[in-house]
Amino acid sequence: MSVVVRNAPRTDAEVVAGLGRFGVATVHEAQGRRGLVDPRLRPTFRPTHVAGTALTCEVAPGDNWMLHVAVEQARPGDVLVVSPTSPCGDGYFGELLATSLRAHGVLGLVIDAGVRDIAELTAMGFPVWSAAVSARGTVKQTVGNVQTPIVCGGVLIRPGDVVIADDDGVVVVDRHEAPEVLASSRAREAKEAATRDRLAAGELGLDIYGMRDALAAKGLRYVDATPVDRAGR
Amino acid sequence: MSVVVRNAPRTDAEVVAGLGRFGVATVHEAQGRRGLVDPRLRPTFRPTHVAGTALTCEVAPGDNWMLHVAVEQARPGDVLVVSPTSPCGDGYFGELLATSLRAHGVLGLVIDAGVRDIAELTAMGFPVWSAAVSARGTVKQTVGNVQTPIVCGGVLIRPGDVVIADDDGVVVVDRHEAPEVLASSRAREAKEAATRDRLAAGELGLDIYGMRDALAAKGLRYVDATPVDRAGR
Amino acid sequence: MSVVVRNAPRTDAEVVAGLGRFGVATVHEAQGRRGLVDPRLRPTFRPTHVAGTALTCEVAPGDNWMLHVAVEQARPGDVLVVSPTSPCGDGYFGELLATSLRAHGVLGLVIDAGVRDIAELTAMGFPVWSAAVSARGTVKQTVGNVQTPIVCGGVLIRPGDVVIADDDGVVVVDRHEAPEVLASSRAREAKEAATRDRLAAGELGLDIYGMRDALAAKGLRYVDATPVDRAGR
Amino acid sequence: MSVVVRNAPRTDAEVVAGLGRFGVATVHEAQGRRGLVDPRLRPTFRPTHVAGTALTCEVAPGDNWMLHVAVEQARPGDVLVVSPTSPCGDGYFGELLATSLRAHGVLGLVIDAGVRDIAELTAMGFPVWSAAVSARGTVKQTVGNVQTPIVCGGVLIRPGDVVIADDDGVVVVDRHEAPEVLASSRAREAKEAATRDRLAAGELGLDIYGMRDALAAKGLRYVDATPVDRAGR
Amino acid sequence: MSVVVRNAPRTDAEVVAGLGRFGVATVHEAQGRRGLVDPRLRPTFRPTHVAGTALTCEVAPGDNWMLHVAVEQARPGDVLVVSPTSPCGDGYFGELLATSLRAHGVLGLVIDAGVRDIAELTAMGFPVWSAAVSARGTVKQTVGNVQTPIVCGGVLIRPGDVVIADDDGVVVVDRHEAPEVLASSRAREAKEAATRDRLAAGELGLDIYGMRDALAAKGLRYVDATPVDRAGR
Amino acid sequence: MSVVVRNAPRTDAEVVAGLGRFGVATVHEAQGRRGLVDPRLRPTFRPTHVAGTALTCEVAPGDNWMLHVAVEQARPGDVLVVSPTSPCGDGYFGELLATSLRAHGVLGLVIDAGVRDIAELTAMGFPVWSAAVSARGTVKQTVGNVQTPIVCGGVLIRPGDVVIADDDGVVVVDRHEAPEVLASSRAREAKEAATRDRLAAGELGLDIYGMRDALAAKGLRYVDATPVDRAGR
Repeated sequence: MSVVVRNAPRTDAEVVAGLGRFGVATVHEAQGRRGLVDPRLRPTFRPTHVAGTALTCEVAPGDNWMLHVAVEQARPGDVLVVSPTSPCGDGYFGELLATSLRAHGVLGLVIDAGVRDIAELTAMGFPVWSAAVSARGTVKQTVGNVQTPIVCGGVLIRPGDVVIADDDGVVVVDRHEAPEVLASSRAREAKEAATRDRLAAGELGLDIYGMRDALAAKGLRYVDATPVDRAGR
Repeated sequence: MSVVVRNAPRTDAEVVAGLGRFGVATVHEAQGRRGLVDPRLRPTFRPTHVAGTALTCEVAPGDNWMLHVAVEQARPGDVLVVSPTSPCGDGYFGELLATSLRAHGVLGLVIDAGVRDIAELTAMGFPVWSAAVSARGTVKQTVGNVQTPIVCGGVLIRPGDVVIADDDGVVVVDRHEAPEVLASSRAREAKEAATRDRLAAGELGLDIYGMRDALAAKGLRYVDATPVDRAGR
Repeated sequence: MSVVVRNAPRTDAEVVAGLGRFGVATVHEAQGRRGLVDPRLRPTFRPTHVAGTALTCEVAPGDNWMLHVAVEQARPGDVLVVSPTSPCGDGYFGELLATSLRAHGVLGLVIDAGVRDIAELTAMGFPVWSAAVSARGTVKQTVGNVQTPIVCGGVLIRPGDVVIADDDGVVVVDRHEAPEVLASSRAREAKEAATRDRLAAGELGLDIYGMRDALAAKGLRYVDATPVDRAGR
Repeated sequence: MSVVVRNAPRTDAEVVAGLGRFGVATVHEAQGRRGLVDPRLRPTFRPTHVAGTALTCEVAPGDNWMLHVAVEQARPGDVLVVSPTSPCGDGYFGELLATSLRAHGVLGLVIDAGVRDIAELTAMGFPVWSAAVSARGTVKQTVGNVQTPIVCGGVLIRPGDVVIADDDGVVVVDRHEAPEVLASSRAREAKEAATRDRLAAGELGLDIYGMRDALAAKGLRYVDATPVDRAGR
Repeated sequence: MSVVVRNAPRTDAEVVAGLGRFGVATVHEAQGRRGLVDPRLRPTFRPTHVAGTALTCEVAPGDNWMLHVAVEQARPGDVLVVSPTSPCGDGYFGELLATSLRAHGVLGLVIDAGVRDIAELTAMGFPVWSAAVSARGTVKQTVGNVQTPIVCGGVLIRPGDVVIADDDGVVVVDRHEAPEVLASSRAREAKEAATRDRLAAGELGLDIYGMRDALAAKGLRYVDATPVDRAGR
Repeated sequence: MSVVVRNAPRTDAEVVAGLGRFGVATVHEAQGRRGLVDPRLRPTFRPTHVAGTALTCEVAPGDNWMLHVAVEQARPGDVLVVSPTSPCGDGYFGELLATSLRAHGVLGLVIDAGVRDIAELTAMGFPVWSAAVSARGTVKQTVGNVQTPIVCGGVLIRPGDVVIADDDGVVVVDRHEAPEVLASSRAREAKEAATRDRLAAGELGLDIYGMRDALAAKGLRYVDATPVDRAGR
């Protein structure tokens, strides 16, 4: 049942680079509020920001053997994405594996499990989003899968999909939809820039977005504080 | 049922400023160990410290519409306090709303839900205490309440109450009790300063606080380590 | 039932210093993946690294009285290890107690409960690993134990055992096994240094560790991505 | 700071009895989706259903002393509502206190903490909604409050408010709003009865509630499964 | 972005019935330990056992509008599978929707969110696996998807896949693999029946499975309890 | 490092039987509020009550191999106590292992991990206290320990210690202290029986335990509800 898929296609590097200019929140909104990895995956250090192509790896609980297998399938520009078959907070990953991944051009790690050596990973500047920090070691007894579709943090991720990660978390973009999401992200960013200036000048979102009628239609009422509110209680 | 209360009274600004010279732990103790917001609300960046008057806002799960309504009710010196009607970790708040709040003099945000754009919020120096970080977007479909009493992080907060927040968390002081709590905080701080010097000089709390008799009365015994303890086990 | 054991023996200071040159993950592996304190205990600031001898203290929920008792039993080089008899996230410990401990040569605190004054603790550089941050104050009503064996973070800790703590967490080494674990840690570190260089040069762990045959024996297969994978889905 | 308020008024018994004919979900909806105690409070046995007036009690973590104080303030028809000042799962309550409460006409217990003796409580048929089950004993060292407003399970509860609890959880109705909520509950129940019959006969909610236009206006599209969906993937 | 897919194909009814004769654990093992929905989804009552075809539904947090849309797409033998786009414990589902689903032949509900009216659901014998029980009501404001692939409890589920649920939890079988998994389940069950008899007769698994050599090869040693173990400590 | 200790001594059977006449709460109190296993371990069915001698087993995460090793060391009257080296909710145990344990006289299971086949275990009447229910299967790759001291649910348990478990949870009594704890349990039970009768007759705990002076000394005040409390708010 365990398989390594070689030569999985990746999203075009220019599209990945384009998406990498945006934050996770922007891309998440631009693709219709989909693809967000569960926020229990948090960055090891901040600020941080990476965009790459998913190198997927499914592992057994407490067993990091397949990470070594995954390294061989890496290509420059990949982000390693790891998910255990059942929840496990053990420290699957540390300085040695980061050294190995970096030697093969991998940009970072997203793992729904634990990592260790976080002082060293921080000193290296190797970005990691993990569900836990734990020095607990793992064994090398059970095989899993590399470069097959996996569910990580509640989201389906396929090999070669775009992974964007920053201080807010991690979002995944389907390889086939990436050009379209890039265009939407650019449009959203442009629109937000204009809004930001108006808000900074003190205009109200109520007016910029024209919300007052809709709020009233939903039954929102305005009242003044009563004398009791004002004087005591 | 949804209402916006205009012109809610605020605690006097001098009292707020006075309380703002103390940390959350001191104020919490000074008012009899009440008013502490659940510590699941954590600051986005550290160190941080803010004191202001509560601008309260109750929202639906996954819906941040009312935050825009709240901005209009803001006054300089307010801290926006947000609570969803059921637990929700979505990212209700980000850079745009922070920009808008700051333009109206709001000093920070306390929210029993998620926020996003935390790199930008950190760069702006806009302090936020939240229950989660998530890029997950919200909708604008359901109305709620602004400037009504709410329960946030397990604590009742009324409009205009004093909100003090620092690296340790968030504490709320009832508007009517604020002058008295300010006096108690000053007394406590003075007392602690004296104790700090004696402890730093090596005196024992057992002696400074005169605890030995009470401990003995509760049955505390002192014994020496046995030879087994000392040699092996 | 409450007791303070005086003059409990400590691990030899040279052995402690030797172990202190290694990280938590290394020591944990070197002693056979035992002794790791539950990773819910996290450092208050990073980077940080401490090694000392356990000064143990068992407390009631919401009651920090025994911490004052423990200070008197402290010796330079100790790390205070605190465990409540039932889970409690209250803020047992803050700046004053840190000042007192430091005056007696205690190097840091490991507590399966909450702490407060974390801005001050960070400014002092006093290292703390705790299960929570909370400004919630505690009482002084119930006695407990000092320098008896306790379970902290799921691990049995005896007075005088070695406590090593860093950004990854906390590991405990039995006083009687410490010299042996020191030797194993040195051997492990030496081996890892050699491996690190080879990984950095691009060699694969698969080859360095000779894993390929074992993986094949477990049934791992390699396949190429299909045209469907490559062209669409 | 600790106080016992004697002779607190209760909601009229007929109104309580009227509300007791409805389930928690109905009453919660009937009062505008407010007043629901956090669902972490679960019944000890099922099925169960109780309605009474709140006898409130605020306790220290790990300390059940005030429960004995509360018994003296009980009146027939009360439900004891207990909240610790910080989260605590200890077993505050067991068979003896249940025996005492029953002797004074108290109908059940709602507690944001732990209970024990649950086999005995079940055999007695004494209904309890608690956040935990734990045999962990508590002390009697710290005073608290009886019959003051408290926050329990995230909801403000005042002495004499109506507490309704069943298999779904616990809802609280403000004493002053109770007659109005009773009327709304009756109206809601009548409406649901009619709807239930139509749904049981196979009519669609889409048609009964006239939702089709609104769904289309929000952009909902209908498509048929593609041949790929139908034949394979 | 919101879509309802009509006429999605279902797994053959005979295959579903065949799989329904096995428990969740057996089917999970028979398909290579895949497809298990996160065990946070628990049955509302026990014992219970259902097997059907997935009718999938993706909803917004706190919004159950799409459940009404899903009913229209139901076919006899379906199990409704619901997942919110972000975690939410609100009570999406109760007696009325169960009445409607049953009228259309739906066998049960699997939902990664909350349900209510559980006394009524239990009385009806309508089986539900949910992540929470909560009387908290939901709104009908935001559209979602029906009969599209969803991730529920961390597992990818496609319309028409087989859903098997019992006291242990929920497992999903891919529609295209279902005949093969049925065969494997039968084989596994037969083998277990033989083993069960031998174990009941007192034979050891060590011998039945021939584990002794492998254990020794991994370094397992047997020793006798020492006199210290026997006499004291 | 992995070891099986044969012929570990057990607590005397009469003492175990004597303790088995008391509930977990009583024994926990009788031994000074020690020895309580974390209440996250819950019984699979209720009511249930067992007392036996600990057969300890330490396992790797997701690996149940050692349970088969443990069966061989079982003696009639044992309770199997299992703890993973890191937190894991997988289903380590089901009907087959229960059949095997029962054939060797083992009375029940206490496991800080998951179990499955709970419908079958319930039908068999085989009592289990577990941290989770999960159908997730485990592997047989990594060796551990049998009959060595382990920490389970935060408590140190040695082979042959007394394990008492009921609806409230699990408590452990040190083998060497068991006769003394039995005597204390008997004394406590006798005292509670007398108190129960007085409470049932309506006497107040305040009077039976003579608490009024101590409460007053701690500052508890009694006041009457104010007219505002009585009339409105």
